[in-house]
Amino acid sequence: MTYCVALKVGAGMVFASDSRTNAGFDQISTFRKMVVYERPGDRFMVLLSSGNLSISQSVREILQVERVPGPGAEATTIWNATSMFDAARVLGQAVRHVYDLDGPSLRAAGIDYGCTLIFGGQIAGEAMRLFLVYSTGNFIEATAETCYFQIGESKYGKPVLDRMLVPSTPLADAAKCALVSIDSTLKSNLSVGLPIDLVVYREGALHSDDMVCIDEDNPYFSMIRESWGQRLREAFESIDNPSWDAGAARYPLEVPSRRYDVLTKITDPGEKMI
Amino acid sequence: MTYCVALKVGAGMVFASDSRTNAGFDQISTFRKMVVYERPGDRFMVLLSSGNLSISQSVREILQVERVPGPGAEATTIWNATSMFDAARVLGQAVRHVYDLDGPSLRAAGIDYGCTLIFGGQIAGEAMRLFLVYSTGNFIEATAETCYFQIGESKYGKPVLDRMLVPSTPLADAAKCALVSIDSTLKSNLSVGLPIDLVVYREGALHSDDMVCIDEDNPYFSMIRESWGQRLREAFESIDNPSWDAGAARYPLEVPSRRYDVLTKITDPGEKMI
Repeated sequence: MTYCVALKVGAGMVFASDSRTNAGFDQISTFRKMVVYERPGDRFMVLLSSGNLSISQSVREILQVERVPGPGAEATTIWNATSMFDAARVLGQAVRHVYDLDGPSLRAAGIDYGCTLIFGGQIAGEAMRLFLVYSTGNFIEATAETCYFQIGESKYGKPVLDRMLVPSTPLADAAKCALVSIDSTLKSNLSVGLPIDLVVYREGALHSDDMVCIDEDNPYFSMIRESWGQRLREAFESIDNPSWDAGAARYPLEVPSRRYDVLTKITDPGEKMI
Repeated sequence: MTYCVALKVGAGMVFASDSRTNAGFDQISTFRKMVVYERPGDRFMVLLSSGNLSISQSVREILQVERVPGPGAEATTIWNATSMFDAARVLGQAVRHVYDLDGPSLRAAGIDYGCTLIFGGQIAGEAMRLFLVYSTGNFIEATAETCYFQIGESKYGKPVLDRMLVPSTPLADAAKCALVSIDSTLKSNLSVGLPIDLVVYREGALHSDDMVCIDEDNPYFSMIRESWGQRLREAFESIDNPSWDAGAARYPLEVPSRRYDVLTKITDPGEKMI
């Protein structure tokens, strides 16, 4: 499977992706799911991909070597687009183009050929923007209320994003948040795996050298993996246990609900359920 | 949707279930998903259900008012079964019976009629046992390595179980663990909702009065909801931020991977991806 996450806060953007692909449990490979496009001082863009690998690789190839055919997009590439919105449209056209080429055969073979992309960055003169591009080539944009996108195995890593991330989160915290989110996912889903590609982009920079490939030897990520589990255990232990002795408890558990009764036990065969 | 979880530790068992059902977002209802069967001193059993509500309600009804037809099960009910394994077989037969009755019509209408059950408890003379019963009536049993089962929306609430729960966990901690797991699920999935039914069973007791229906006014659960989020934030903040300045960091982030290069940026149109 895949886990990719991208965050946009006021101070910048963070992109992180795992690199495991699988076609059955005995066919596990490492493919990196991030591409960084940069023309320093002019534009900085990152593409993360999930889903069918042949589709997403074809999309990436097309973005680089061909002009994408399609209405209104003949002359636009991600390199001459004047806005991230236009660049996202080029990407959507590339996705549709690959589906036109490969979709019918894959569909006929009953193969899952979904492909979902995250695309974000900044073009000179415009604010940073972050998009989620669907298999059908249309896309949505992150906003202040929802300032991150995930693709692939998203559930395990979502709670920490929901709890920690707001647009005012400092960039370093946002990067830590992305790595904790990935750690939670790695822990629960074997089909998400190292190495992780991490890119941090500072608002307005129009380039970034803050790129790292994180494997099992990375000191910072190893610390996160160890500390986060330990801190979660400490947090868990610091919370009072429930007590069935209402008198003794600071936060009693056994108080009647105003609207609902405690379940009636069924105590004899033939007795009806309440 | 649904979230139910059952834990078996050495000291006892914990069962917890939410009570939201939905048939589309504008058809949200409250149905409780737990049934407690008890004959004090002889047996104590709890059934949790997820999936198609009409199927699971029919299964529950059949368990109480009819003998389940089926090979070898004619004379066995959950009330006269001499082992939890036999009781689980009765439950599996009941599931198959309902599928025989309702399955063809539901299938013809293209309706999802899955139904997954958790069934656990203790019968005098035997150890506690915990089963997960599939739509097809077969079942698996929890072991020391995997001492819990979840049904429904399981992913958000799984990390805390994986990190905190072992067979030696005290019963009160196990109950807290179940409630934290439910809190995480409630926070991330709107289709899981209050009230929560919670039952705690002490090993060997063969009855339990530790049953509560938890709604938004419950002091203990409100404390969990507030404290857990707060403690997670503190845990998060207590971890060092990543630093791109390798010299200054206790746990440097930017160290080369031994096996993989940092991604090569694509800097010009037409240049090939590395």
